[in-house]
Amino acid sequence: MYRNHNCGELRMANLGETVTLAGWVQRIRKMGGMTFVDLRDRYGLTQLVFNQETDAALCEAANHLGREYVLQVTGVVTERSAKNPKMPTGEIEITVKTVKEMNILNESATPPFTIEDETDGGDDLRMQYRYLDLRRNCVRANLELRHKMAFEVRRYLDSKGFLEVETPVLIKSTPEGARDFVVPSRMNPGQFYALPQSPQTFKQLLMVSGFDRYFQIVKCFRDEDLRADRQPEFTQIDCEMSFVEQEDILELFEGMTRHLFKTIKGIEIPALPRMTWHDAMKYYGSDKPDTRFDMRFVELMDIMKGHGFPVFDSAAYIGGICAKGAASYTRKQLDALTEFVKRPQIGAKGKVYARVEADGNVKSSVDKFYPQEVLQQLKAAMNAEAGDLILMLSGDNADKTRKQLCELRLEMGAQLGLRDKNKYSCLWVIDFPLFEWSEEDGRFYAMHHPFTSPKPEDIPLLDTDPGAVRANAYDMVINGVEVGGGSIRIHDSKLQHKMFELLGFTPERAEEQFGFLMNAFKFGAPPHGGLAYGLDRFVSLFAGLDSIRDCIAFPKNNAGRDVMIDAPAALEDAQLKELSLKVENK
Amino acid sequence: MYRNHNCGELRMANLGETVTLAGWVQRIRKMGGMTFVDLRDRYGLTQLVFNQETDAALCEAANHLGREYVLQVTGVVTERSAKNPKMPTGEIEITVKTVKEMNILNESATPPFTIEDETDGGDDLRMQYRYLDLRRNCVRANLELRHKMAFEVRRYLDSKGFLEVETPVLIKSTPEGARDFVVPSRMNPGQFYALPQSPQTFKQLLMVSGFDRYFQIVKCFRDEDLRADRQPEFTQIDCEMSFVEQEDILELFEGMTRHLFKTIKGIEIPALPRMTWHDAMKYYGSDKPDTRFDMRFVELMDIMKGHGFPVFDSAAYIGGICAKGAASYTRKQLDALTEFVKRPQIGAKGKVYARVEADGNVKSSVDKFYPQEVLQQLKAAMNAEAGDLILMLSGDNADKTRKQLCELRLEMGAQLGLRDKNKYSCLWVIDFPLFEWSEEDGRFYAMHHPFTSPKPEDIPLLDTDPGAVRANAYDMVINGVEVGGGSIRIHDSKLQHKMFELLGFTPERAEEQFGFLMNAFKFGAPPHGGLAYGLDRFVSLFAGLDSIRDCIAFPKNNAGRDVMIDAPAALEDAQLKELSLKVENK
Repeated sequence: MYRNHNCGELRMANLGETVTLAGWVQRIRKMGGMTFVDLRDRYGLTQLVFNQETDAALCEAANHLGREYVLQVTGVVTERSAKNPKMPTGEIEITVKTVKEMNILNESATPPFTIEDETDGGDDLRMQYRYLDLRRNCVRANLELRHKMAFEVRRYLDSKGFLEVETPVLIKSTPEGARDFVVPSRMNPGQFYALPQSPQTFKQLLMVSGFDRYFQIVKCFRDEDLRADRQPEFTQIDCEMSFVEQEDILELFEGMTRHLFKTIKGIEIPALPRMTWHDAMKYYGSDKPDTRFDMRFVELMDIMKGHGFPVFDSAAYIGGICAKGAASYTRKQLDALTEFVKRPQIGAKGKVYARVEADGNVKSSVDKFYPQEVLQQLKAAMNAEAGDLILMLSGDNADKTRKQLCELRLEMGAQLGLRDKNKYSCLWVIDFPLFEWSEEDGRFYAMHHPFTSPKPEDIPLLDTDPGAVRANAYDMVINGVEVGGGSIRIHDSKLQHKMFELLGFTPERAEEQFGFLMNAFKFGAPPHGGLAYGLDRFVSLFAGLDSIRDCIAFPKNNAGRDVMIDAPAALEDAQLKELSLKVENK
Repeated sequence: MYRNHNCGELRMANLGETVTLAGWVQRIRKMGGMTFVDLRDRYGLTQLVFNQETDAALCEAANHLGREYVLQVTGVVTERSAKNPKMPTGEIEITVKTVKEMNILNESATPPFTIEDETDGGDDLRMQYRYLDLRRNCVRANLELRHKMAFEVRRYLDSKGFLEVETPVLIKSTPEGARDFVVPSRMNPGQFYALPQSPQTFKQLLMVSGFDRYFQIVKCFRDEDLRADRQPEFTQIDCEMSFVEQEDILELFEGMTRHLFKTIKGIEIPALPRMTWHDAMKYYGSDKPDTRFDMRFVELMDIMKGHGFPVFDSAAYIGGICAKGAASYTRKQLDALTEFVKRPQIGAKGKVYARVEADGNVKSSVDKFYPQEVLQQLKAAMNAEAGDLILMLSGDNADKTRKQLCELRLEMGAQLGLRDKNKYSCLWVIDFPLFEWSEEDGRFYAMHHPFTSPKPEDIPLLDTDPGAVRANAYDMVINGVEVGGGSIRIHDSKLQHKMFELLGFTPERAEEQFGFLMNAFKFGAPPHGGLAYGLDRFVSLFAGLDSIRDCIAFPKNNAGRDVMIDAPAALEDAQLKELSLKVENK
């Protein structure tokens, strides 16, 4: 061992001890005849002190150290004259006395950016030198958190009798859904494996096998055109249980979330409220409402329609939100909000506002159409008080308008400081629709996936009104982020066949794609269900990060490239030949 | 929840309780007016009893159940009249009284083989219906063991301050070494990712990043022509530490192995002996000696050469083993051993034997060349006693002959019952050579990999006698199986460059392949080292399995196929087109 202590643990209690430390040079300062060096490792920083008077050669050597040199030093733990209460080791320093007590284990070129929480390195540079970026405390802390969360997930699930089972990475391509990454098979020319988008079918097979409680923390892959905050490879906490109903799953995984909050963040979270998908859409315009703040939608058709204001009079939906205490918004701020909702990503035509003044009167941007009496009705409906600001959107499509209002609500929440990263609001969104209608393709798609079970009481609707069928499907939402979701699965092969039919699979295609699963279901499939969490997102949320990239050790950029190792890259011709492949020029 | 108890937990203490169980029908027996059904789940078997007299319709329904039907039953825990001491639940049974207490959750077609430890299903059939094979207790037990081992590995390493960090799966191809599986990038036409053969470079980068103690239980991939007991995807316990010497790593991972033996198998294993690679080759003809039994090689050149026996007189090596108590081997058994060593896989020309008779005399197959006096010297050298059998091989290449003798030793160990699967003998093999000379290519290869550090005292030999340089490399061997291995790495970029040079890399090629690692080393790489265990093998060893396949949930066959899901498979033309690829006919 190159050390007998780490750089984060020495305290006043160690005074007088001779210790050996190893680490990286964080900072060098010369003061008077002294040289101070901060030595860093994963565990902290410790100050070393070299005295010109006791050993000039040693001090000279210390003066020639560079940032990020790797050092091994032996010295005596001494009390500092100027203590630093901000550092855990700030009361002591290590006095190094002779040259042979300082051993340069490795030199370092000057790093291209500073190894500090607030670094001067831009995103591209940091990604290219990710191994240096990872030296920064704030980045390493995210990965330490990730380790802890994964470990606590395993501990909780193990304690509940779950078995972690590894499912294969080299599987078969299923052209439905998102695009697969594929892997040519050299031994089977012209054939390919695919990388799993999720272990969905395998975990269901494990239930057929009687594994009863399965989980896996597992890499999944999706060859998508990358939007912000998507990675081609991502990690799921994948879970499945047999002989359970939806209620059992919600309870068990609510317990897991509570366990994580408690062990990782020391927070006792309250029981998770449940909201139907229908209510989430109605009151928040989103299936993942941020419930850290209220500001629910109020439908205003009855009150605001038919008063001669053409925009509202022609609307299919009018909805409002009440921003508490925001009546003081200036003209400029209100205009900025209008610009915000008019951005093409949101697409509203404009917004209407109404202020509740100190005397209780309501002043609106469309005052001329509305007598105070109506505005008072508005105020009452919005539950608004003096000092509040009411914001209204309308449109000819209720769903679309709600989505726009959702964006406005989130923006107002942010502006009013209601989206505190250190505050957590968790809930279950339940009763998702089974199908999603695609206007474009003129057909239904599975909202979750084709194995999701309809609610038993809605099964008769499959034939008459598929769009109204609710699924036994659920998402866990925290702070407006969908951290996990799942469903009770179909375990009856007849019902599964019916689903495939409704989803437009020919029997041949269903057989080709899911034949092995359907076949397995003939041999006694138990009732089962499960869910999967996105570990990257879950960790980001706990870490208060804006991007999942920061909790991934070696992430890829938006073009799917690892700029550090420069992948992907061209292959050698011999490799392609062995794989019986030829690259076609586009 | 479809049950309030599982099928493995009810005992006499539960008598009189009304319980609900769910599981699979294992067996149905009719006796007198009774029908007995064994209900199975992951936790055990429980007997259900249906009485013709109390409810004829119910009993009739039970008689129509089939094997592997999925059943939910409610009944009363009753004492059995005929108890079964072999079953944990063998003292009780569940009396089911009315039809509505038996709920068939799913029917089952007749499975293609019996769901029993001793099944009638052949290997191919079991793999095709792996989801049914996994229902067999003995198969599920292997995966339960795998879960436990992985969990205990994590628990131990977490307790030692290791962080589990996920490294990327989509990386860059390195044509050196074994073949990579590659993944075409749709977004970067003509470019490919590769799947990692191990996270070697990433874990070294994490050490450069100051992560200090890293581990990961991780899937790795190798596109090899599959020999028996190789899988294209396999799982490693991958570990790396900074500021350590070889001794620190050996101690820490000896501790991990001890922890596993203790927590999983309840065995306290003794401190691991260490054997140099040189001794392992000399005394066992293998770098992974099975030390459950002794039977070490004794070199016999001095004693047996020069007595007129042409085979020995012309040999470059003569070695013997002493099989205790095997003097009673018959002519037929001895001939079979000769056939064994003459098999092309082993390739010896024949073997010579000598029996130590009850009176102490030695009788040899080449008696006519050797006076009893010499044979007594042989006996003494071999430490042989009355009743022992001495087996000797010779050849013109010492290494080759030792390998042959190794096979003979293992065979004799097996025949004499010395390779008990329930006995464990662990050791470290250390001081591996740094290089391996390839006669075929006329050059040196890295025995371990190009990042392995030479022993500091051997560094001068790099220029004069590379073949004699020993590495700071080590393998953990248990019962003749290499379960793990690793090395101290080179952290000095000059030494690393020299290694690349000795291994015949041009500077350009070294840069192209490992440029990012060499670059990282310029910024202060700490001394570091690590090792990796093969989880599949480790589990197989603990489970006493002959093949790693049995501890993998969904393994591939020797042609790299998953016969259950029928992968790999052809892609659709559109998929190939999107990837800018064309399959060439061979």
